[in-house]
Amino acid sequence: VIGCEVAVLGDGSMGTTLAQVVAASGRSARLWCRSGSTSSSINERRRHDRMFPNAELAPTLSATTDLEEAVRGAPLVICAVPSQSFHGLAKQLGPLVTRDQVLLSATKGIDLRSLRRMSELLQLETGARAVGAISGPNITPEIMAGQLTAIVLASSDHEATAASARVLQTDRLRVYANDDLVGVELVGALKNVVAVAVGIATGLDLALNTRSLLMTRGIAEICHLAVNMGADERTFWGLGGIGDLYLTCTSPQSMNREVGVRLGRGEKLATILGDMKEVPESVYTVRACRALARARGLMLPITEATCRIFEGDLDPADLEETLAGGHELYDIDSDPQTPRESTLRVA
Amino acid sequence: VIGCEVAVLGDGSMGTTLAQVVAASGRSARLWCRSGSTSSSINERRRHDRMFPNAELAPTLSATTDLEEAVRGAPLVICAVPSQSFHGLAKQLGPLVTRDQVLLSATKGIDLRSLRRMSELLQLETGARAVGAISGPNITPEIMAGQLTAIVLASSDHEATAASARVLQTDRLRVYANDDLVGVELVGALKNVVAVAVGIATGLDLALNTRSLLMTRGIAEICHLAVNMGADERTFWGLGGIGDLYLTCTSPQSMNREVGVRLGRGEKLATILGDMKEVPESVYTVRACRALARARGLMLPITEATCRIFEGDLDPADLEETLAGGHELYDIDSDPQTPRESTLRVA
Repeated sequence: VIGCEVAVLGDGSMGTTLAQVVAASGRSARLWCRSGSTSSSINERRRHDRMFPNAELAPTLSATTDLEEAVRGAPLVICAVPSQSFHGLAKQLGPLVTRDQVLLSATKGIDLRSLRRMSELLQLETGARAVGAISGPNITPEIMAGQLTAIVLASSDHEATAASARVLQTDRLRVYANDDLVGVELVGALKNVVAVAVGIATGLDLALNTRSLLMTRGIAEICHLAVNMGADERTFWGLGGIGDLYLTCTSPQSMNREVGVRLGRGEKLATILGDMKEVPESVYTVRACRALARARGLMLPITEATCRIFEGDLDPADLEETLAGGHELYDIDSDPQTPRESTLRVA
Repeated sequence: VIGCEVAVLGDGSMGTTLAQVVAASGRSARLWCRSGSTSSSINERRRHDRMFPNAELAPTLSATTDLEEAVRGAPLVICAVPSQSFHGLAKQLGPLVTRDQVLLSATKGIDLRSLRRMSELLQLETGARAVGAISGPNITPEIMAGQLTAIVLASSDHEATAASARVLQTDRLRVYANDDLVGVELVGALKNVVAVAVGIATGLDLALNTRSLLMTRGIAEICHLAVNMGADERTFWGLGGIGDLYLTCTSPQSMNREVGVRLGRGEKLATILGDMKEVPESVYTVRACRALARARGLMLPITEATCRIFEGDLDPADLEETLAGGHELYDIDSDPQTPRESTLRVA
C-alpha cells in the first residue's frame, strides 16, 4: 500500500465529498469507511450509493476500513466523523500518525463531554505539529455537482494552512485561509444554535422582522462567547460565520434548521430525531454552548431559551420574549456584560 | 394648529407606519401627504387605502398637505420621502424648521447627484443642531400588524438619540441606539447592492453555497467602502447591517431583491421597473455605490458587476466570475486594498 496524498476519515456526506474533490483533481485520496460494503462499493464500482447515488467517483479515490492503512504516509489527514465520535477517533489516531502529518477537522461541533473543539482533541491525542479545521457555507451535494463553493481553512501553523489549501483548492472549490483556528471552529459549531433559534421562529411563523432581530442578536451572542474563548470576532463576519449562517437559515436541506422549524411547530425533539437518519450536530451544540457560557459566567439568553425548548422546559412560543423583554438596546455593543445602554435606556 | 409631538414627512409605506406607531401609543403625530385625497381620507375616515387598506389609523394621527403646518412646533421631524426627492424636501425645510428641532431620515438611500447621505442633506440645508437616521430590518406591514420589530436609531447628538428613541419606542417596536450615524445610513443604503446581487444569483438559480459566498464577500465589500467613508465596521454586523440584509435577501416582499431576481432571469431593467409602483432604492444605490468607490480609488468587484448588469452591459450569468476569478483568498481580510493572501496564495 502506497501512502496517498490525502486521507479522509469518515464516509459521511462531507468526508466523501472532500475525498472526491481531491481525487477528481487528479490527486490520490483514501477514504476510511466504517462499513466494508461501502468500502468495496467504492473500490469496485466507484459508487457510494448511500450518500451520492448519482455520482461516479474518481479512479484515484480508494477506500479502506483499516484506519492504519488509511492514514499511513498521508501528509494531510482530514477527520469528518460526527462530533461525539471524534474523541474516540482522535485516540485511535494517536499511535498511528507522525508529528509531521497535518490533521484537519471537517466536523462542525463541540465534544460535549470535554467541551473541547475538534482540533483540540486531535492535538491532545496525537501531539501533531499542525492541527486545523475546515468550515464554511458548504452544502455537500452542491460541491459534488461542481457548484462554485468557498471553504475556510485554518490551522495552528501558517505553512500547514497554505499547503493544505493548495491540495484542496480547485477552480470550483475556493479555499479561503484564516489564521484564527479557535474562531473558525467555534463559529462553525455555534452558528447552529442561531440556526435552530431562527428555525424555531420560522416554525412559529414569526414575522421576518422578528426573525432578523433574532438572527442578529443570536450571532452577537455566540460571538461574545467565542471572543471570551479566544476567537477573533472578525471570523464571525466571514464565510464560516454569517456566510454559513445565511446558508443554514435558508437551506431546506439543513437538518439543523429543520429541527428548529419542527420544534417551533410544536413537535417534540424525540419525535423529530426519530425521523432523521443522523442526529444533527445542533442537538449537541446547543447544550455545549450553554455549558461553555455558564462556565464563563456569561448570560446568553437566546442560547438558554433554545436549550430549554430542546429539553421541553420552555414553550417555543416564549422564544420571542427573550427579545422583547430585554433592556439591551444598544445596536453594536459587542460586550453584553457591560451594557452601554445604561446611558441610553429608553424603555 | 397646535404643534404635534412628531411630524412625519412622506405618506409612503414607512412614513405612514412610523406616524401610526407613534399615534397608536397615544402621542400626537402629523403626516405630511403629497396628495389632498390621502390627507382627507386620513383625517376624515382614519384610512390610508393606498398603503394599508386594512388598517384603521389612530385618532391622534392627523394629516396635512401643508409642509409648514406639518413641521411647526414638532420637536421631532422624520423625513421618509424617496432618496432622489430628499434633497428637494431638505431645501424646503430650510426656512421652516428651527435649530432645536431634531430631524431624522427614514430613507435608505444616497443622493445620486451629490453622493451625500440623507442626514447630510438635512444638516446642509437646515443647519439643525441634531440630525439622524432610522434603519433596520423593517418590513412595514409587519410593524403595522404589531409584530415584534427592532429599529436602529443614530444621530449626531447623543441626547437627541435618546429623546427620539423614547418617543418611538413601544412594547413591539424596540429602538436600538447606535452612535455611528455614518455607518447606520451607509449600511441601510449599501446593503441593497448586496441584496440585488444575491437576487441576481437567485434568479440564475445559482447554488446556495455560491449565494452565501456572494453575500459574505458582498457585505465585506460595502463595509470596506463605508469604513473608508468614516463608518464603524461594527455597525455592519448589527441590525441595520446583517439583520437588514438577511431580511432583504429572504423577503418575497422586497422590491430590491425582486429587481435582482428578475435581472437574473434575463429580464431587462426597464421592463422590471415598468411593472413596479415605485422605483426601488437599489436602482439608485447601485450607481451611487460605484461612484463613491471610484471616487475613493476602491475596487468593489461585486458592485461593479451588479452595476454593469443593471446597465445591460454584463450578462447576469457572468456575475459568478466575480467570485471565482479573484485571488482574494483570505477570509476575514477587512482591507482588500492590501491583501494578506500574498503570503497564502494557493491558486
